[in-house]
Amino acid sequence: LAAGLDLVHGLDSGAGLVSVAGLGSVAGEFLRELAKIVGPDHVLTAPDLRAGYEVDWTGRFRGAARAVVRPASTTQVADIVRLCAETGIGLVPQGGNTGLVAGAVPEGGAIVLSTRRLRDIGAVDPISAQVTVGAGVTIARVQELASEAGFAFGVDLASRDSATVGGTIATNAGGTHVLRHGSMGRQVAGLGAVLADGSVVNRTSGLPKDGAGYDLPALIVGSEGTLAVITEARLRLVPRLRRRAAAWIAVESVGAAVELAVELRQGLESLNALEYLDDAAVSLAAARHGPRPIERQSDATVLVEVAANRDPTPELVDALSAATGVLDAVIASDEVSIRRLWAFREGVAEAISAEGIPHKLDVAVPLDRLATFEDGIKRIVRERGSAAEQPWLVVFGHLAEGNLHVDVLGVDPDDAAIDDAILQLVVDLGGSVSAEHGIGRAKRRWLTRARDAADYGAMLAIKRALDPKGILNPGAMFPG
Amino acid sequence: LAAGLDLVHGLDSGAGLVSVAGLGSVAGEFLRELAKIVGPDHVLTAPDLRAGYEVDWTGRFRGAARAVVRPASTTQVADIVRLCAETGIGLVPQGGNTGLVAGAVPEGGAIVLSTRRLRDIGAVDPISAQVTVGAGVTIARVQELASEAGFAFGVDLASRDSATVGGTIATNAGGTHVLRHGSMGRQVAGLGAVLADGSVVNRTSGLPKDGAGYDLPALIVGSEGTLAVITEARLRLVPRLRRRAAAWIAVESVGAAVELAVELRQGLESLNALEYLDDAAVSLAAARHGPRPIERQSDATVLVEVAANRDPTPELVDALSAATGVLDAVIASDEVSIRRLWAFREGVAEAISAEGIPHKLDVAVPLDRLATFEDGIKRIVRERGSAAEQPWLVVFGHLAEGNLHVDVLGVDPDDAAIDDAILQLVVDLGGSVSAEHGIGRAKRRWLTRARDAADYGAMLAIKRALDPKGILNPGAMFPG
Repeated sequence: LAAGLDLVHGLDSGAGLVSVAGLGSVAGEFLRELAKIVGPDHVLTAPDLRAGYEVDWTGRFRGAARAVVRPASTTQVADIVRLCAETGIGLVPQGGNTGLVAGAVPEGGAIVLSTRRLRDIGAVDPISAQVTVGAGVTIARVQELASEAGFAFGVDLASRDSATVGGTIATNAGGTHVLRHGSMGRQVAGLGAVLADGSVVNRTSGLPKDGAGYDLPALIVGSEGTLAVITEARLRLVPRLRRRAAAWIAVESVGAAVELAVELRQGLESLNALEYLDDAAVSLAAARHGPRPIERQSDATVLVEVAANRDPTPELVDALSAATGVLDAVIASDEVSIRRLWAFREGVAEAISAEGIPHKLDVAVPLDRLATFEDGIKRIVRERGSAAEQPWLVVFGHLAEGNLHVDVLGVDPDDAAIDDAILQLVVDLGGSVSAEHGIGRAKRRWLTRARDAADYGAMLAIKRALDPKGILNPGAMFPG
Repeated sequence: LAAGLDLVHGLDSGAGLVSVAGLGSVAGEFLRELAKIVGPDHVLTAPDLRAGYEVDWTGRFRGAARAVVRPASTTQVADIVRLCAETGIGLVPQGGNTGLVAGAVPEGGAIVLSTRRLRDIGAVDPISAQVTVGAGVTIARVQELASEAGFAFGVDLASRDSATVGGTIATNAGGTHVLRHGSMGRQVAGLGAVLADGSVVNRTSGLPKDGAGYDLPALIVGSEGTLAVITEARLRLVPRLRRRAAAWIAVESVGAAVELAVELRQGLESLNALEYLDDAAVSLAAARHGPRPIERQSDATVLVEVAANRDPTPELVDALSAATGVLDAVIASDEVSIRRLWAFREGVAEAISAEGIPHKLDVAVPLDRLATFEDGIKRIVRERGSAAEQPWLVVFGHLAEGNLHVDVLGVDPDDAAIDDAILQLVVDLGGSVSAEHGIGRAKRRWLTRARDAADYGAMLAIKRALDPKGILNPGAMFPG
């Protein structure tokens, strides 16, 4: 690991990390009680065993956990939460640990509650087109289950092999098919979750319509483990479409990309995905994944995917022929070529990480202001640079939702000024400081700027009502 | 109005209605303050002016309002709510008053806050495919706005000319296109709402992805005016599809209807709607809307609609030819014939009301238990009858979601035993006591049976946190 990683970047300075050495007798008693619940093998206290749960995958955020506990059932989760409520010790739910805003990085003496052993898998019900799975099941596994039963799953993202159902629901993760099927929350037909007092809410019947009281699952979606620990989910599946096609399209600018997106969205019924890459993203991916799909360099690239039961290639070709602003396009209509285009797009995040520790922001901006936004961040990055060192801006993301991932390389990871400038621009343009990654610990001081006082007050009132002792993911979203 | 309607059927006996006569000086002062906010013309206190706001459209539920106040802006709503918070006087938000569970029927000395004057209409934004409208705008008007701009709106329901945006969001109304586009909540890209202290939450930026904090709009959707007064909504529009087709299909039973629905859902990409009618529903509609589309009588009928940019008729014909269980089918591929089929389906509720005051339940049951459910309700209704008088059961609804509207005619409207028996069966089968109409006042004593203690406790904690004085729609969902 690179130097400096034992700092927790972007966290409020007040949130100090506790040492796990020298636990007193109360703490020892707590650990013994944990061991009674899950068995001693599943309470990890040794630093080397805890290590993988204490740092995020980008290496930007590191914390310290009092212990890592790995329950295997909802009952065990409930017992752990009850024990935490009794002792006032915080718990940080953690799924595949693929988060990007330190939402699952422990601080303040909390334990990590890893959901990875919650791997129960129900049978796919073809009548409701749903399946119930444990929170620790990965997205890739859900995709497999769906496929084996003749369906598909509505969410796909690059971290599919590690990201869990629980974690992606807790952050309302998006990915590349939001345009067609919505974010993770939209796949949720029901949830099982443990509340802050250890009681269990079971809404897994999977009814597509259920107006009996408040939509608690909808509130828990995106609440980042601060209101409940998700233990299982009833997921809706979507029909599997037999054929897909994709296009890699060079356009002049982000403005032209938006124009193309709006046109295609109106005309292409089979639209599955609309992704954006700037030239830096394409160049970085090309360095790792072979030659650029289109040799000609362009400031902006759009990746389009369509899917249908009949071959959607003709429809895609027609739409692109009629569209304005297409400089050049490559169509992929066989699976190998389509996958190659996606590998290129999905390789961007890893290619960035290979260059160093980036400033990494996930934001959304209204589509009609996306061009203004890109101009603004270029200016911000330019102003941060010196003659000797010019920061490196990489922008890519989910065009249809105005959701861009903004990465800046070549700036001290501890220097939050560039993040602040970019996020302020987002707020000024009516955008969101977090589109699909959540607030976590990295962006919590931004939440009060992103939401006005009444809105923030309502969120805090809900948090206090459902978690009066503040034991659920303390420090995430709100100050600990 | 028929006799007995001054009773509020199905309400808890404890929730007495107050007389509005003999208001003391405090109450007079309150009314003068209301008049200062909205002008004296928009504070209705005379019984004849209040009357239309105090009874639901079926005539089953009647209450009494201290006054009806009709604000024209979010600021006026905020001032009214603040005044209510100061005086402790409850307010019942009311949209088009098309609800079916007395969710907008005033009780306990509350005022009615009618949202019908909140009719601001923004320009349709073709880039985001969204529009911002006031809570009092009707669904029909939103459909028109969408159509004029080359889009469509995802929700359609029989009460479109009266039902408002605010009311349909507050109940998360469904309608006939849920299968394709989801319920009303799914059309919500953002909300403006007034909280119980009169503060205003503005989340109308319309970002398709916004992970900055809790999804307050998702919590407000379906909360029936108990957490906030919705004043405006940012609504997503959907692409307008050029062609549609429909089929009226006779099948043997509700079980066969479910089987057909599952098959069509898998194979028909262009599926828009899947509706169910039992023989009683078809017969009632036929008596008012002309001859049955299929002469042959069958226990169950399915209405299917498909829509696409190309003519979807061939696809529909192919799917029905391949499907099992089709006894007979009529295909409508021109607009006049399609509308005739829908008029038939949509005429059922009115045809029932013309026969008398029904017991009217909106429930959802898992699809694989729908046949068991129908057997059960037939048994319940049979057991309630005598040799002299046999109750009349009419069942219709939204097949794809297992959402049935169960109407029973010929039973004393005050006799809640039949509702209790049917709703208990729903709970026993893992269904929902309210699919798309909400809990309101009519079903509130069922909410504790529908949800377990932890779940109900969490809902109540949220209610108390956001409305500590209990002024927002007191008596709806929870006891007043």
